[in-house]
Amino acid sequence: MNTTFTDYGAHQDQVPVEGALEAPTQTLSFQRKQTLYHSGDPAQSVFRVRDGLVRITRMTPEGRVLTVRHVMPGDFFGEEAFTRGNREEIAEALTTAQIEAINPEMINHSDLMTITQSLSKQMQRLMDYEYHLQTGDLRQRVARYLITLSETPLCSKDAAGRPVISATHELIAEGTASTRESVSKIITELRSEGFIESGYRSITIVDELALEAIVDGIE
Amino acid sequence: MNTTFTDYGAHQDQVPVEGALEAPTQTLSFQRKQTLYHSGDPAQSVFRVRDGLVRITRMTPEGRVLTVRHVMPGDFFGEEAFTRGNREEIAEALTTAQIEAINPEMINHSDLMTITQSLSKQMQRLMDYEYHLQTGDLRQRVARYLITLSETPLCSKDAAGRPVISATHELIAEGTASTRESVSKIITELRSEGFIESGYRSITIVDELALEAIVDGIE
Repeated sequence: MNTTFTDYGAHQDQVPVEGALEAPTQTLSFQRKQTLYHSGDPAQSVFRVRDGLVRITRMTPEGRVLTVRHVMPGDFFGEEAFTRGNREEIAEALTTAQIEAINPEMINHSDLMTITQSLSKQMQRLMDYEYHLQTGDLRQRVARYLITLSETPLCSKDAAGRPVISATHELIAEGTASTRESVSKIITELRSEGFIESGYRSITIVDELALEAIVDGIE
Repeated sequence: MNTTFTDYGAHQDQVPVEGALEAPTQTLSFQRKQTLYHSGDPAQSVFRVRDGLVRITRMTPEGRVLTVRHVMPGDFFGEEAFTRGNREEIAEALTTAQIEAINPEMINHSDLMTITQSLSKQMQRLMDYEYHLQTGDLRQRVARYLITLSETPLCSKDAAGRPVISATHELIAEGTASTRESVSKIITELRSEGFIESGYRSITIVDELALEAIVDGIE
């Protein structure tokens, strides 16, 4: 995990991924910010995140990056290998990541059920994320995204046990349908209110209840 | 299909759904606007749309409806029956619909592969839809949504062969992260420009190329 902070455990990326697949797999290692595949690449393998956080993005014609999906430890992705020839999105490791590559032709019934359940859970999360993008003002969306990221491998704990998220303002903009400038303004507000601290490429959650109150619109 | 217009065929809902499942299924009929399940209902069955159009929505605490997914003929939905006890969303038939209910415990490998491929295609469509919600101004989003709906069973053809979409301004607002008032303003604009005609609960696409030019930002 890519972090300069002490890690006190209890993170998603340390939850053991349930049962090994019966299909032969190959485990690949990626560095933070490394691209796993580009739009247009041939879709030959289905992948599973063993640890780390992967995001799936699309780029607008103007070059704006939009995050369309987050892939967590245990989740499968690249499932377009079941149906089509090429990748449509870009997959990028947001932390160092261990990824299993699986040949879709070697998958048996039990593996396929595991994959179906993973896709089902992720469909649910995608719908949550859509809801998130469509509701609330930017302050609410930023607060909600910080809480979401605090439950991913992008988050570690500092010496005081507080969640520290390794994220730039740009990354937050790309996950809240916003711009870096608007996100920076909100981050400055939240910091001056004492709800977060922010440093170089990192945000520390100081008052999670306050962030949740913002999300719920009851601040 | 729920339409008062002559139907000249070549619609998605008339494309035969590929191969029957091997698992026993029960076919259910729904009327337009009928709810298939509510949030909180027990998730016992997985469903497949044989014909018609289903949308999946969530409601905000303020009672605003957000469309989070469209389910087309041949698509499976209700896949949370593989992983969890209860429905989170609301499923509603937007046209008369024939729906197959499947017991998830009776599904064999070949059925499961069909379902996995359907979920894979729908993940892709969900990411398209997210992209759609995040890009473009409302005029672009409305134009794009009209083109999307013209490829669903919500669309028939009039005597002149033009696509007629059975949709209220409210439905379009719920699918473009907007409000009825703002959508009505855009619809009035598009009508006065001669790109569409609009009647009671219906919109006729007069100039599809013009709508596509709006989507592409080249009008």
